[in-house]
Amino acid sequence: MTVRTIEVRERVMARNDALAAQVRERLAAHGIWAMNLMSSPGAGKTTLLERTLAELGEPLDIAVVAGDCQTQNDADRLAAHTGRLVHAVVTGGACHLDALQVFDAIEHLDLDATRLLIVENVGNLVCPASWDLGETTRVVLFSVTEGEDKPLKYPKMFEKADWVVLTKTDLLPYVPFDADRAVRYCLQVNPNVRFLFVSATTGDGLAEWFDFLRRSVAPLARV
Amino acid sequence: MTVRTIEVRERVMARNDALAAQVRERLAAHGIWAMNLMSSPGAGKTTLLERTLAELGEPLDIAVVAGDCQTQNDADRLAAHTGRLVHAVVTGGACHLDALQVFDAIEHLDLDATRLLIVENVGNLVCPASWDLGETTRVVLFSVTEGEDKPLKYPKMFEKADWVVLTKTDLLPYVPFDADRAVRYCLQVNPNVRFLFVSATTGDGLAEWFDFLRRSVAPLARV
Repeated sequence: MTVRTIEVRERVMARNDALAAQVRERLAAHGIWAMNLMSSPGAGKTTLLERTLAELGEPLDIAVVAGDCQTQNDADRLAAHTGRLVHAVVTGGACHLDALQVFDAIEHLDLDATRLLIVENVGNLVCPASWDLGETTRVVLFSVTEGEDKPLKYPKMFEKADWVVLTKTDLLPYVPFDADRAVRYCLQVNPNVRFLFVSATTGDGLAEWFDFLRRSVAPLARV
Repeated sequence: MTVRTIEVRERVMARNDALAAQVRERLAAHGIWAMNLMSSPGAGKTTLLERTLAELGEPLDIAVVAGDCQTQNDADRLAAHTGRLVHAVVTGGACHLDALQVFDAIEHLDLDATRLLIVENVGNLVCPASWDLGETTRVVLFSVTEGEDKPLKYPKMFEKADWVVLTKTDLLPYVPFDADRAVRYCLQVNPNVRFLFVSATTGDGLAEWFDFLRRSVAPLARV
């Protein structure tokens, strides 16, 4: 039984990786930089994206694929902040996005008019880590309300992250969260990861986040 | 491919349900009331359990099975608060506990000396909802830092919950969280769910939580 399950899982993952490679190739052909944005439920993905679309949606030609278990609330929230296209993927209860869903979703986007694609994954610190979506960069949001130990408890997510964004920093005075220790735990599982600190509520750190996006997109600018 | 995966998944779930029934029968034979405690990462399961073990570990003969993806940090934290047995289950990256893990874990407990078994699931609002562990009651912790919309976005978890415990209520003044709306959303997906409100930091609401545990265990008291 177990062996059978693992075999099937391996075939599913191999198929996902093949599709992710196709997504990656397609996006590269259009000069698009793509972010896979992951976190626990409620770490602030959608709020950060709202601020991002309001500031950079037009200048960076951002398009969004918003994954959600059951609603398209996030996509609706985001669409209110931008004239840019936001495509909702409702996973029907599934715990992560897969490359096939992104492959299908980008059919609905105007890739020629997109430079930055942000894929908002399902809120989950475990499963999405295993699924390559064809992204250029993996960003994990990590809220200061979650406790410093999350990188040790959910190492795969942090091992594979390029950036960790500590969110809700405005709450630091009210929660027992040692940011230095959190950074140390992240580096323990992933010595190459880089950090940003933001509060979408007060705006602290958003300038650095916006700069990061601008810098990431610039090298791919089409002539 | 998809059909094959679904077939295997159905067989896995059927096997899980059969094992959960065995766990349930075994616990009932020992007069044990069992809670499956679930939430997002960082919603406060371990902190609430620390307070619970300190107050009621001995009087209610509590035993704990603590599930975690990769560490036994939680089990270690909990063991410091009780002379009672805390058994760690490290899932090796898996996103939920299953009935086989609980079946094996309770072998390590002294069931004759246990009245209340608390199973701390992996921090994840999606996957654990699908896995019956043989529990008597399902409790979902829902932190006020997560946003009111979580019941709509992760409905399966809330549909199957007997109790929702709103946690970190001490942070209500600092976060944009409308508790009435959160309750309404919970009731929308599950009209029978009941509520508690706690702050493990200030102690607000803990008396009601302790009463709930005392009342739940009382009817099963052995003579």
